[in-house]
Amino acid sequence: MTSGKCRIKKYTYGTPFCTDAVVEQTAAGEGSPSFITELDNGFTYQMTPSDAVYGLGENVRGINKRGWHYVSNNSDEPNHREDRTSLYASHNFIIVDGRERFGLFIDYPGKLTFDIGYTEHNTITITAEDMNFDLYVLEGGSLKEIVQAFRHLIGRSYIAPKWAFGYGQSRWSYLTADEVREVVRKHRENHIPLDSVYLDIDYMERFKDFTIDEEAFPDFACFVEEMKKQHIHLVPIIDAGVKIEEGYDVYEEGVEKGYFCKEADGTDFVAAVWPGLVHFPDMLNPDARKWFGHKYKVLLDQGIDGFWNDMNEPAIFYSEKRIADAIDRVQEFKGKNMDLTTFEEFKAVTGTLSNNAEDYSSFYHNVDGKGTMVCHDKVHNLFGYNMTRAAGEAFEDLEPDKRILMYSRSSYPGMHRYGGIWQGDNLSWWSHIELNMHMMPSLNMMGILYTGADLGGFGADTTEDLLLRWLEFGIFTPLMRNHSAMGTRRQEVYRFESMEAMKKIIGLRYGLLPYLYSEYMKAALKDEMYFRPLAFDYTEDAFAAKVEDQLLLGDGIMVAPVYEQNAEGRYVYLPEAMKLVKFRSLTERTEEILPAGHHYVPIALDEVAVFIRPNHVLPMSYGGECVDEVDFSTLQLLGYVTDTAVYEWYDDDGYGKDYDNPANYSTFVVKADGNLEVKSEKKLNITVSL
Amino acid sequence: MTSGKCRIKKYTYGTPFCTDAVVEQTAAGEGSPSFITELDNGFTYQMTPSDAVYGLGENVRGINKRGWHYVSNNSDEPNHREDRTSLYASHNFIIVDGRERFGLFIDYPGKLTFDIGYTEHNTITITAEDMNFDLYVLEGGSLKEIVQAFRHLIGRSYIAPKWAFGYGQSRWSYLTADEVREVVRKHRENHIPLDSVYLDIDYMERFKDFTIDEEAFPDFACFVEEMKKQHIHLVPIIDAGVKIEEGYDVYEEGVEKGYFCKEADGTDFVAAVWPGLVHFPDMLNPDARKWFGHKYKVLLDQGIDGFWNDMNEPAIFYSEKRIADAIDRVQEFKGKNMDLTTFEEFKAVTGTLSNNAEDYSSFYHNVDGKGTMVCHDKVHNLFGYNMTRAAGEAFEDLEPDKRILMYSRSSYPGMHRYGGIWQGDNLSWWSHIELNMHMMPSLNMMGILYTGADLGGFGADTTEDLLLRWLEFGIFTPLMRNHSAMGTRRQEVYRFESMEAMKKIIGLRYGLLPYLYSEYMKAALKDEMYFRPLAFDYTEDAFAAKVEDQLLLGDGIMVAPVYEQNAEGRYVYLPEAMKLVKFRSLTERTEEILPAGHHYVPIALDEVAVFIRPNHVLPMSYGGECVDEVDFSTLQLLGYVTDTAVYEWYDDDGYGKDYDNPANYSTFVVKADGNLEVKSEKKLNITVSL
Repeated sequence: MTSGKCRIKKYTYGTPFCTDAVVEQTAAGEGSPSFITELDNGFTYQMTPSDAVYGLGENVRGINKRGWHYVSNNSDEPNHREDRTSLYASHNFIIVDGRERFGLFIDYPGKLTFDIGYTEHNTITITAEDMNFDLYVLEGGSLKEIVQAFRHLIGRSYIAPKWAFGYGQSRWSYLTADEVREVVRKHRENHIPLDSVYLDIDYMERFKDFTIDEEAFPDFACFVEEMKKQHIHLVPIIDAGVKIEEGYDVYEEGVEKGYFCKEADGTDFVAAVWPGLVHFPDMLNPDARKWFGHKYKVLLDQGIDGFWNDMNEPAIFYSEKRIADAIDRVQEFKGKNMDLTTFEEFKAVTGTLSNNAEDYSSFYHNVDGKGTMVCHDKVHNLFGYNMTRAAGEAFEDLEPDKRILMYSRSSYPGMHRYGGIWQGDNLSWWSHIELNMHMMPSLNMMGILYTGADLGGFGADTTEDLLLRWLEFGIFTPLMRNHSAMGTRRQEVYRFESMEAMKKIIGLRYGLLPYLYSEYMKAALKDEMYFRPLAFDYTEDAFAAKVEDQLLLGDGIMVAPVYEQNAEGRYVYLPEAMKLVKFRSLTERTEEILPAGHHYVPIALDEVAVFIRPNHVLPMSYGGECVDEVDFSTLQLLGYVTDTAVYEWYDDDGYGKDYDNPANYSTFVVKADGNLEVKSEKKLNITVSL
Repeated sequence: MTSGKCRIKKYTYGTPFCTDAVVEQTAAGEGSPSFITELDNGFTYQMTPSDAVYGLGENVRGINKRGWHYVSNNSDEPNHREDRTSLYASHNFIIVDGRERFGLFIDYPGKLTFDIGYTEHNTITITAEDMNFDLYVLEGGSLKEIVQAFRHLIGRSYIAPKWAFGYGQSRWSYLTADEVREVVRKHRENHIPLDSVYLDIDYMERFKDFTIDEEAFPDFACFVEEMKKQHIHLVPIIDAGVKIEEGYDVYEEGVEKGYFCKEADGTDFVAAVWPGLVHFPDMLNPDARKWFGHKYKVLLDQGIDGFWNDMNEPAIFYSEKRIADAIDRVQEFKGKNMDLTTFEEFKAVTGTLSNNAEDYSSFYHNVDGKGTMVCHDKVHNLFGYNMTRAAGEAFEDLEPDKRILMYSRSSYPGMHRYGGIWQGDNLSWWSHIELNMHMMPSLNMMGILYTGADLGGFGADTTEDLLLRWLEFGIFTPLMRNHSAMGTRRQEVYRFESMEAMKKIIGLRYGLLPYLYSEYMKAALKDEMYFRPLAFDYTEDAFAAKVEDQLLLGDGIMVAPVYEQNAEGRYVYLPEAMKLVKFRSLTERTEEILPAGHHYVPIALDEVAVFIRPNHVLPMSYGGECVDEVDFSTLQLLGYVTDTAVYEWYDDDGYGKDYDNPANYSTFVVKADGNLEVKSEKKLNITVSL
């Protein structure tokens, strides 16, 4: 297959499991791939010291993945520390850029290890548990072209409804309807823009999927309607495990139809998660997937139009068969004088109960619905993908003309067609703002465009300045949600002294929406990246390739957030002259042209810096307190134009699926003298500010 | 008391416990201190947004402590994460620098909380468990003068032997003498300089203090001598807990003499640590302290001349009285269907056994040796201090004329007179290089000069580039030790492809010794800081006050390490013009004058950047493979001299204690034309390189 300048060849090893990651037929490569050396259990490649390696989607460390090892093994990992090797996703695509430039996608749902200059500084080694996979080698073309070819291969990215580009407020958990009302009231009273409030696990009746705690949320459909009238979308969470409880329809139907994952002896596998003991729907069984996906109708019918799928690695607190044994083993330590070794063994008895590999190797999927059983550990990384696919396929059926918000915690290539992801249970760490920045382009490479991190941090206590700085980056991420864990400091913005500053920053998001939404849609429709590392555009600039904390966003801007506590600015590298626009709010801004090169840029705690590239414009709205309020037809074009800027602007109604209608595209041509020419089928009211 | 321009006033609240932190009598302040507002349980102060707060010694976050809360509560905390509030030490001294400038030292051995703009952005709140403490308020003078006054108050800092400024190699653990021999041989064969090898807990017979595992280390005294002949000092670890074992003399004596910490009923408190069940020597009992300190003689007599005191918060794996109950409570969960809440309770049963506050409140100290019993939790933060004091006081007695290397994990002001600290169980994280940088000046403020972090990182797997970059900072820290934990990747430098580069960097340390040792000694003898934040010297430079990742080191240089993976340089702020010297080794260097301002400075993976301040010189040796080999009488002065540089150089034999002999001081006067004038009682051979 050839996609632009990029050629894709497929090499099949052994008997691959069909993941449905890929949607395009691809020519088989002959013999072995030329770039890399085959090993018994994988591949190796010798880098030069200056080669960079991009990819791997959701993982720790830098944009350039060199210097660490990563394991594709979807994990419920709440500590996104530098020394972790697995997070929630398996994104087995990398691009090596240096002496040679090529992409590798290993379509393999088991455990896969990428040693990228960890064991040896210049050696990449990729090893699989077994040699049963398709390897796709992408060669020729630029970094952007290789990404585009890969994205074409795996299919069009999920497109979120326009309202989901507004600001969302979340907490584990808002426990009652009244608590939600209070959150909404506080936002509306203080004119803090808001489009969604998230319902974490406590909205359910004892954590049972597709139920509502009627006491805490009486008359749920009315409540959803009441919120809608205030332009608030409620977004409930759905968990992977189905509570074992007599009389609970999802449980009873699943058992009856045989739709749950099985033990080797054919009984339903029992694990414990939030609700206690559960069964896991067999997301890899097409019939079970269809059945589970259509369960979302229970909530759709009550007016819900957005969901987040959680715990779908799947996370396991403990399995029924191991807990009793563990408790017995603890007893064996009674009366022992435990030294270091013994105490470590003691702690391990209970400390290794959760997410244990033994459990993952002890249950099975009926992968064709006809009795072909595959052990979970062989296909572990597909579970979250197929849970979200279950929903996505059902939505196509139930609501064919309406976009439903959907994002997942766990993922694998292919899932990007059905939903986005949030970046999991991060922490209120300054370094997690940077990690958020690093993940954005890496995820975009994988086709995951609708994504963002929990702003302010999920675990641990936030600080006011951390939240401010994180919001200043968060306004640029498609998913913009403030979320925090039970037991941590509350972090709704109205709780802080600097609420006014936070409000203005969130308000700026709504001003940026015409640009952000346009860039998101074009990235989805054209297989492009919304966020890009500088290296992807400034291909001849060796320094640009080293920049890990600045990102190009769409057509015309660069962002460079501050992520250091007590800093009042930061260093920024400009590969070319740019216009620096510093916003204190949508209406308060200063502008300055900065020459190419290194700069220290003062950015106060309440300021957002945007860099506009030469001969580019940034279309902005005049804001609103919810997406519905934003007037996309009245725009101001901020620009840095020395000659001519041409901007292709995408807009649509934001709710339907007529994506490819040419009427969605407009073109703005702006000259250095401010002259504007608009080609559009829409009626637009545009002012230019250069 | 007045020290320089700084006045110190002491305010006594309630009935303070005498910590012996302070060595100078101080005038009592009248009424209440004027700067701060008293609360029922502490103090509060309103900052302006631009105030900076320095201090707190060993803790997380930045040099400027604003934006977080910190708890003085000595903790065995192996996760030095941003969200932690306590590490191993309680360093209750801060300086507020802004609208007003003043220092506060709260001499209080219980739990003390510093909320420094965490709850409210501009508010400092300091709260104690009870109002029984001495508050020292230091006002007048510069930051440096306030630090100097505080240091004068708490007494002269510990001085390490000169050999301890060499490079040390450590591992938990080198298990046998042969393994140590191999480590030494690999260093010597490859000409990697080395002065010490550390013996972690496994050198002991089943973790019993002051014993040797005779099988693993037969004929220990001979082995120590064998190593000494190769200029290698062995440095054994000593733990806080004494194993309960019939026939073990330390245990039996301690029981007999009543020298262990007691339960309320007068029986010896039983906890478990490395060896299993132990008693804790009552380090706060002067008699017990003397007894325990003199136990070090067992090792001194075998030729040992250095120690590290570990686990002296004290760390507790579990206490005897709580473990049985915990094991019983685990049984109660058997057969339960555990949901979220229940499973959290289940995990907490065993998960909260270690370092539990209940245990700390259940044992007692005989604080005067005469039966005055004080509950441990009231004086918790003094334990490690007094363990190290036990050794330090005994060394004065046993080896009055010889310096013994001593450093501790836990500390409190006062301990700095008896030893240094290492910065605890850090991780192989890039952010921990930065944390290491932040701690250095903060610890120097507390009088802790002999300190450093585990280079390469203790926990988690290191990477080659991390170790290289960390060594590049580590060559400047008085304690320079590579240490790593059991189960992690081996990180002796000879194991890496870039051994040559690492060797050259370590070699550079030996070249820098004449300067580093001189600056260390002057800092100790004059109550000055070895490392200083830029704000301490460039007092009128508002930007300098924001710089968190560059440090002034002694009289004439600034360091700016690279601590970002895959970076090939970094941004550096120069408050004035400086000479940049980039070393690849002691003999390979390039020089360049950089003007004041912001710079991007390329610093390759194998390079060390040193910035020499104007009209300063850096005296260097020609290196060596151990400190004994370094010729301190043959120097090269690297300098940046536009007019005149005057350097006061300190040197002594490095092993005795004739610190104040004027003959230890020389003066070098260097003119811009290279002319050198030397005032010295030593015979020196000096060349100048400008």
